[in-house]
Amino acid sequence: MTEKFEPINAKGVRDFLPEEAIPRKRIIETLKAIFEKYGYSPLETPAIERIDVLSAKFAGGSEIMKEIFKVEDQGGRELALRYDLTVPMAKVVGMNPNLPKPFKRYQIQPVWRDGPIKLGRYREFMQCDVDVVGTKSMLAEAEILAIVAEFFAKISMDITIRVNNRKLMNGILDYAGIKENKMDAILSIDKLEKFGIDVVKKEMEQKGFDDKAIDAVLKILEIKGNNLEMLEKTEKLMKNEADGKEGIKELRELLEYCELMNVAIKLDFSLARGLEYYTGPVFEVFMNNSKVTSSAAGGGRYDKMIGMFIGRGEYPATGISFGIEPIFEALKERKKTTMKTVTEALVIPIGTLKEAIKLANELRASGIRTEIDLLERGISSNLNYANSLGIPYVVFLGKKELAEKKVKLRDMKSGKETLLAASDVKKAIVSHHTL
Amino acid sequence: MTEKFEPINAKGVRDFLPEEAIPRKRIIETLKAIFEKYGYSPLETPAIERIDVLSAKFAGGSEIMKEIFKVEDQGGRELALRYDLTVPMAKVVGMNPNLPKPFKRYQIQPVWRDGPIKLGRYREFMQCDVDVVGTKSMLAEAEILAIVAEFFAKISMDITIRVNNRKLMNGILDYAGIKENKMDAILSIDKLEKFGIDVVKKEMEQKGFDDKAIDAVLKILEIKGNNLEMLEKTEKLMKNEADGKEGIKELRELLEYCELMNVAIKLDFSLARGLEYYTGPVFEVFMNNSKVTSSAAGGGRYDKMIGMFIGRGEYPATGISFGIEPIFEALKERKKTTMKTVTEALVIPIGTLKEAIKLANELRASGIRTEIDLLERGISSNLNYANSLGIPYVVFLGKKELAEKKVKLRDMKSGKETLLAASDVKKAIVSHHTL
Repeated sequence: MTEKFEPINAKGVRDFLPEEAIPRKRIIETLKAIFEKYGYSPLETPAIERIDVLSAKFAGGSEIMKEIFKVEDQGGRELALRYDLTVPMAKVVGMNPNLPKPFKRYQIQPVWRDGPIKLGRYREFMQCDVDVVGTKSMLAEAEILAIVAEFFAKISMDITIRVNNRKLMNGILDYAGIKENKMDAILSIDKLEKFGIDVVKKEMEQKGFDDKAIDAVLKILEIKGNNLEMLEKTEKLMKNEADGKEGIKELRELLEYCELMNVAIKLDFSLARGLEYYTGPVFEVFMNNSKVTSSAAGGGRYDKMIGMFIGRGEYPATGISFGIEPIFEALKERKKTTMKTVTEALVIPIGTLKEAIKLANELRASGIRTEIDLLERGISSNLNYANSLGIPYVVFLGKKELAEKKVKLRDMKSGKETLLAASDVKKAIVSHHTL
Repeated sequence: MTEKFEPINAKGVRDFLPEEAIPRKRIIETLKAIFEKYGYSPLETPAIERIDVLSAKFAGGSEIMKEIFKVEDQGGRELALRYDLTVPMAKVVGMNPNLPKPFKRYQIQPVWRDGPIKLGRYREFMQCDVDVVGTKSMLAEAEILAIVAEFFAKISMDITIRVNNRKLMNGILDYAGIKENKMDAILSIDKLEKFGIDVVKKEMEQKGFDDKAIDAVLKILEIKGNNLEMLEKTEKLMKNEADGKEGIKELRELLEYCELMNVAIKLDFSLARGLEYYTGPVFEVFMNNSKVTSSAAGGGRYDKMIGMFIGRGEYPATGISFGIEPIFEALKERKKTTMKTVTEALVIPIGTLKEAIKLANELRASGIRTEIDLLERGISSNLNYANSLGIPYVVFLGKKELAEKKVKLRDMKSGKETLLAASDVKKAIVSHHTL
């Protein structure tokens, strides 16, 4: 025999055995169905892209290029694995100039980043983006936030959707007289929610912003009240700040549309989101009753990025990226039972193989995910198998049941056994794939 | 402005715009649902694997290693993209020795091969495998062929399932006195269906097999009749050939199980399938009324491969790989209409934006995939948009409809318009996503 070979995985990547692959697939299917309900269609792009596309100006930027996985092809071409789904979408928009607008797409595919491996960070992970290209209407944002609300309601996850606007944030900086190093100020302000106002103040001081400017910023960040009150109070301060006024106008529209779509949002003037390319509303979604602190989704409007990336025309766009991995983590917390299989019923023949095969056919035709013993095992081995996988029901078919034209259904959890007709099994079992 | 940048794709890979991504996803969802109905659970493995796993003895072999895409990681590890789904599954079985048996899994993921690009051959393509590990029962094969039959019936594709057995093929070679270069003979015999008996004969002569041996092989290949008759006639010749007898026994069992599961198969003693690792039944599926000549699915039993690959224990296994790409090609042939969107209805507000937003909510809640005008366009621009995407229905909401508590539904194909209550729209539209 050969030397013992120990198969192992590459660093930072994972296999998903059924126990994990099943709930992951269910969540992704739930997302897809909701995206499609709002008229978003699927897009798929290749894993392998040309490095000149991935590294183009206005694409991911130099930080992310340090983390790409380069791929060698035999023709010596410069290729790499995609690191996000936004650049491939911009590429598709550039390659297909006649796409009807608005172009509403969703995309759920893995991406790869050769970065440091930390708790919950992997080198291959699933991304899930939904974007609309070609409209400046705030109704687009409202629709995306309605998708967010509907999805998290569907999986019974309580969330808060925090919303801000980059134009308003610019207005606040204008109001405070901050004309340079705006992004520096924005990154400090973004820490308000997590670390409190004192940290923001201190960090801005350390960065060299003057006291008057810091006080002006804090004055706005300390505005309290409901969404409309916050906008009213801020509006009074924005006398000459054109960006600020425009940002407030956008937020008012967004609030109105969200109300019409029954979506609860919470304005938060400190919310920035790191990326520089946002130009209008930005939003971030947090799960309220979970230990997972990473955001569950986040995005915003980026009216200039695609146009600059492909170097032609205007392509206003807005979208959101769902944090599939944090959502999986949060769902794991409340998982009570582990199912290692999709199977709902295991048919155990007792000297009745032929009839049992027909019974399995019948159960499948009635919509039950059904296995039949493939190893000609005894009853106890079959019950052990069902237990080890968490199969919720077994169906015995012995000579006695056969004579009575019945089957014996056993609920593996309660141990309760019922004699019933094969055609009644479907009604008797409870569907087992709720999230 | 920046220099004009022309985004293009790497060689041999594709974007799937909604027009293609939609039917691809529908087919994959159809497959998944059927796999699960038979108790197969999803497995997912990473795109990136260690080269020592991919190139291990009994894995893909040296030919395939010439076509791997190597991946560089910053730690200088030897990695590559997976080229199939069988080796990753064998790896998972090796890494998880306590997996309950039988292990029934399906896996639908892309694979990468840096091979020559021909018509219909790409460097990134989807694979779809369903396998069961841990049973020698022919019922496993029958179940897999039942999945095949059910799937192709579901997409209304007429097929022929050709079946042979490697043990029987060995028996035939034993009967003909061929003891050496068996694989050479098998590869010639495999050409019978495509090129006819004269080509097989000539090729075997050229390979140096003696006339007596060739005549003996052809004698069996020329056996005619239905499945059982073919087995009977062959059985009479297999007097001392243990492998041949065992192969016939397996085929008899398989035929019996297939009959119980209503699966029509056609025995074909010339069918070999190229891979060396098959040990029992082999099968290949062809689409009867399509120009696509590649097989639509193929597989067989490989009782020794996994055990040899991971160097421990016995892991009998059987499975099939669906040729997702040929199936897509065949379905394209009969495609009558092109849909570039999942959207079923486009809501067009006519001075009724707020009410139209609520109408869109209502239509979505009733299960209709709904878009609403996001560009505040006029009626004719909206109709152009619907036409360009193939959206089958538009719903007008004007002041007049509003006053009557009705909406106007227009069938974009017939042009027919109907005034009806919003709650009746669902009934009025025909679902548009049949395959």
